[in-house]
Amino acid sequence: MCGIVGVTGNDNAVKLLIHGLEKLEYRGYDSAGIYVNDQDGHDYLVKRKGAISELKAAITPEVHGSTGIGHTRWATHGGVTVENAHPQFSQDDRFYLVHNGVIENYKELKKDYLSDVKFTSQTDTEVVVQLVDHFVVKDGMTTKQAFLKTLSLLKDGASYAFLLMDREQPDTLYVAKNKSPLLIGLADGFNVVCSDSVAMLNVTHDFLELKDGEVVTVKPNSVDIEDRDGNHIERKPFHVDTDASEADKGIYPYYMLKEINEQPNVLRKLSQKYLSDDGSSKIDTKLLDAMKAADRLYIVGAGTSYHAGLVGKNLFEKLVGIPTEVEVASEFAYDDPLYSEKPFFIFLSQSGETADSRVVLQNVTKRGFPTLTITNVQNSTLSREADYTLLLDAGPEISVASTKAYTAQITLEAILAKSLGESLGIKRAEDFNLRQQLGLVATGMQAVIDEKDQIDQISKDYFVKATKAFYIGRGIDYYVSLEAALKLKEISYIIAEGFASGELKHGTIALIEKGTPVIAIVTQSKTAGLTRNNLEETKSRGAKTFTIATEALSEDGDDIVLQDVDEMLTPLLSVVPAQLLAYYTSLNKGLNVDRPRNLAKSVTVE
Amino acid sequence: MCGIVGVTGNDNAVKLLIHGLEKLEYRGYDSAGIYVNDQDGHDYLVKRKGAISELKAAITPEVHGSTGIGHTRWATHGGVTVENAHPQFSQDDRFYLVHNGVIENYKELKKDYLSDVKFTSQTDTEVVVQLVDHFVVKDGMTTKQAFLKTLSLLKDGASYAFLLMDREQPDTLYVAKNKSPLLIGLADGFNVVCSDSVAMLNVTHDFLELKDGEVVTVKPNSVDIEDRDGNHIERKPFHVDTDASEADKGIYPYYMLKEINEQPNVLRKLSQKYLSDDGSSKIDTKLLDAMKAADRLYIVGAGTSYHAGLVGKNLFEKLVGIPTEVEVASEFAYDDPLYSEKPFFIFLSQSGETADSRVVLQNVTKRGFPTLTITNVQNSTLSREADYTLLLDAGPEISVASTKAYTAQITLEAILAKSLGESLGIKRAEDFNLRQQLGLVATGMQAVIDEKDQIDQISKDYFVKATKAFYIGRGIDYYVSLEAALKLKEISYIIAEGFASGELKHGTIALIEKGTPVIAIVTQSKTAGLTRNNLEETKSRGAKTFTIATEALSEDGDDIVLQDVDEMLTPLLSVVPAQLLAYYTSLNKGLNVDRPRNLAKSVTVE
Repeated sequence: MCGIVGVTGNDNAVKLLIHGLEKLEYRGYDSAGIYVNDQDGHDYLVKRKGAISELKAAITPEVHGSTGIGHTRWATHGGVTVENAHPQFSQDDRFYLVHNGVIENYKELKKDYLSDVKFTSQTDTEVVVQLVDHFVVKDGMTTKQAFLKTLSLLKDGASYAFLLMDREQPDTLYVAKNKSPLLIGLADGFNVVCSDSVAMLNVTHDFLELKDGEVVTVKPNSVDIEDRDGNHIERKPFHVDTDASEADKGIYPYYMLKEINEQPNVLRKLSQKYLSDDGSSKIDTKLLDAMKAADRLYIVGAGTSYHAGLVGKNLFEKLVGIPTEVEVASEFAYDDPLYSEKPFFIFLSQSGETADSRVVLQNVTKRGFPTLTITNVQNSTLSREADYTLLLDAGPEISVASTKAYTAQITLEAILAKSLGESLGIKRAEDFNLRQQLGLVATGMQAVIDEKDQIDQISKDYFVKATKAFYIGRGIDYYVSLEAALKLKEISYIIAEGFASGELKHGTIALIEKGTPVIAIVTQSKTAGLTRNNLEETKSRGAKTFTIATEALSEDGDDIVLQDVDEMLTPLLSVVPAQLLAYYTSLNKGLNVDRPRNLAKSVTVE
Repeated sequence: MCGIVGVTGNDNAVKLLIHGLEKLEYRGYDSAGIYVNDQDGHDYLVKRKGAISELKAAITPEVHGSTGIGHTRWATHGGVTVENAHPQFSQDDRFYLVHNGVIENYKELKKDYLSDVKFTSQTDTEVVVQLVDHFVVKDGMTTKQAFLKTLSLLKDGASYAFLLMDREQPDTLYVAKNKSPLLIGLADGFNVVCSDSVAMLNVTHDFLELKDGEVVTVKPNSVDIEDRDGNHIERKPFHVDTDASEADKGIYPYYMLKEINEQPNVLRKLSQKYLSDDGSSKIDTKLLDAMKAADRLYIVGAGTSYHAGLVGKNLFEKLVGIPTEVEVASEFAYDDPLYSEKPFFIFLSQSGETADSRVVLQNVTKRGFPTLTITNVQNSTLSREADYTLLLDAGPEISVASTKAYTAQITLEAILAKSLGESLGIKRAEDFNLRQQLGLVATGMQAVIDEKDQIDQISKDYFVKATKAFYIGRGIDYYVSLEAALKLKEISYIIAEGFASGELKHGTIALIEKGTPVIAIVTQSKTAGLTRNNLEETKSRGAKTFTIATEALSEDGDDIVLQDVDEMLTPLLSVVPAQLLAYYTSLNKGLNVDRPRNLAKSVTVE
């Protein structure tokens, strides 16, 4: 969360910064700002509350420059105001700073060093830029010395990506990172910096990764990476294949609808990439061997990725027979879990940058346990730091509410579970014709998408005016209920809860009133009847009930009937109507589907 | 859920039935009814929607009899109407039936046998009473034969406790049960039947337990228990010690406040019962030996008991070092879990009757795994059917929202974990002065209770008008957040969610608006700073924030400061302000604190 861009050595800096921020808006859109310098003594600071479009509208023709920094904010400390927007600056207007992350000890630093400074914001970031100024002005340090000194004062737990500018060195960007992602882009005759390559694909596909603790000096024609002791570090750029146009929404009104529509193709691509035509696995045997040695699998994720992990547990236990635990990253990171003797860790992260998951990855790597990251972003932090990586190849997911990444994660878990089970000689895995099943799933997804007008109508009739709603199910239908409720919450602001249907009567059923929408997901033959009973109980209390069921388990009056697929794979289908219901409810309420209130994608704070 | 009473051979039958239903009202209060017969050709059926008080008001002086049945309903099939209230009766007005449970195949039975019958309700129960009538009238069976035939047609999964009356045998009650609880009470010169002994403690303390599949004929001077093949079964009564007056609310306006206030004493009693003065354990060594042999503990519960189990996991893992899983009963029952080699199962159930937990208990007993039930009710089904039982001795908990049972469950888990850890020679368990700590906890609880006016004020100022609220925390603070949110939901109908604070930003933070109350629980030194950061993030988005913190971790401005106790035991303290906040919010909204909408205690359907 929070997006950062920087440019040095291009007279169109303002245009490049704004374009970059637009591409990074998924990382936060509480407020935004830029600072640019033209090296002829003119500089400009423009900040606005709200979306990048507000900032863009505020930029007058005179605002220009060749070097600059920009920021789009997801507020952590201090409310959403212009004062709290970035860039933050020092009291003498000399230093400008943008920051992605959280400085935990900013109050102590303020007290210890800056008691005489007048602050204009409530941010942790302003303390950092005032400190740099303090060390330069009061202690006579160079800018770089002051920057290094300031970094050394930040508590170990601090997370940051910093771009610092000094008005007296107008062509230089000082860069440092810890935990938060940051890349240097090498363009033709100039250089750029960004939180995510997508921001700068219009000017380069060649990027340098940065590691925690490194400090970089970026000028129009040079990039100098050093460690904290001043040793120079050589590094080769890597190439990003993504086509800039993939990140455009094309004919769709919102990215989310585009991404929902892409799901059948994403599935087919994954199936082709990881399974041969005869259905055999193309997964790296080294990875399978490492997993085979495990006595327990731990799947770690947050939010939607956690929900995908829950579905994965069922796949691994059924197809492989290795007990599998699914853990919320932010909880697992600070627990003191009793691991099994030979654990294997699977990290699910769409962005590959999730801070909480990274803490777990670092903990278990220290203990020598093997790790795999399943992510959509090549060269992302979690991908670089794990022993193995499997890529989702789902293409950029721009909408904050994740859709195709969720179904891609489950698909890849299914492929991995089948491959592993097969290599262990598990009959159920050998007999499982996954390639064929994924074909059925893709067709079934398309069938739901083709009926989207019906879901739009349900949304208009029953959800647009609802303040609360419930999804219920048992087993993997419950796991999908969690994801379905999250989608509705995220973008329509309806207070939705996903519930193990048997648990409703232990308290939550008190919330059911006349007309409260309750949606049951019924795809598992063993529990279909019980879930229908629980739905009936809510109906007895006045709920407006809906049922999403597979054809084999459907009854007269069911609202959405899904094509039959193997019961382990039904989440790939049952989630699609829920995605569409969330989409249409947000749309019909006149909200910004892709940019929900308070949220940001790629959660790089803990 | 659903409460049943029956009386035969007492001219005050109406009074006894009404008294019994009042005591059983915790099991459901959607509607209620009685049927009585005076054996002189007069009989009466009275049914009303709503609480027992409505039924009581509807009983005119002429309504009298010596044999009768009564029912208070928690609706499962069919809305809340007088027609759907019990007793249900046959179309010729000859047979009357009350029922607690769910008949899954009632639609098929209706189609197969009763296509010519006119039904007056939407209940599954009416099908049963019409079937009995059908077999008597059309097929010439005796009433008992018809009852047995009808029982044989119910699907294996059906749950029921039935009391059947035949107008032509006015002194006889036909009784059968499967999964739902039912007791026969032996009174002086007459007999009674009830779902829970509390209903009839005013006339007897001697009860006969019934087992699934048995059929009983109860007359004023005889009780005849038979199996389905007609074999007579001899059984001795058991004695219930509970004093009838313990179930009165005394000086308190609501049971819930009484039960919150009882918590310090419940803790002290448990401490004395299970720990010697020198702190050593009085737990049965056979139980400890059985647990020692386990390689993994599985704690199974539902609702509040599930939340108590989560806190227990931490105690067992820290003090014993055996990995512990906590499972939602309704989920675990129908999953196909991969058990460890030597599992040990702990069932948490306040009532000892939770249907979902019983399914799990039966499954694992079949596989020969050892089991323990921790419950508040002696001789309850789960207690009788497990290998071991530990009693909470918390006294009757009448309020539907559980309070003292939750803290008693955690206390007993702590005592068990310490005893087990000690017997395994685990240093941390040996060093843990639990007896002293529980003394501190009891004092700390009292301190919170003494400050209850402050919580009342917070409720009035910020919660009475709120439509939603969030509790957040990490680790065991998160587990308490789940319980705290459940309390608020159950009785104040505010849509509350308990959240792992690190997960908020992965979606749910979209629900935060100006003024949304968010309460952080901060009792764990390792994660206190992170949870405070997450609270700050909600504040940035306009939330009205509150903090409940232990003294050692408190900061200026915290709303509730708890006495310091060992960090493993803080849930016993941090839950108390949450219980009080739920209580006052329900009270201040003018709701019935003890009898929340839609709910019932003792969940005997799945």
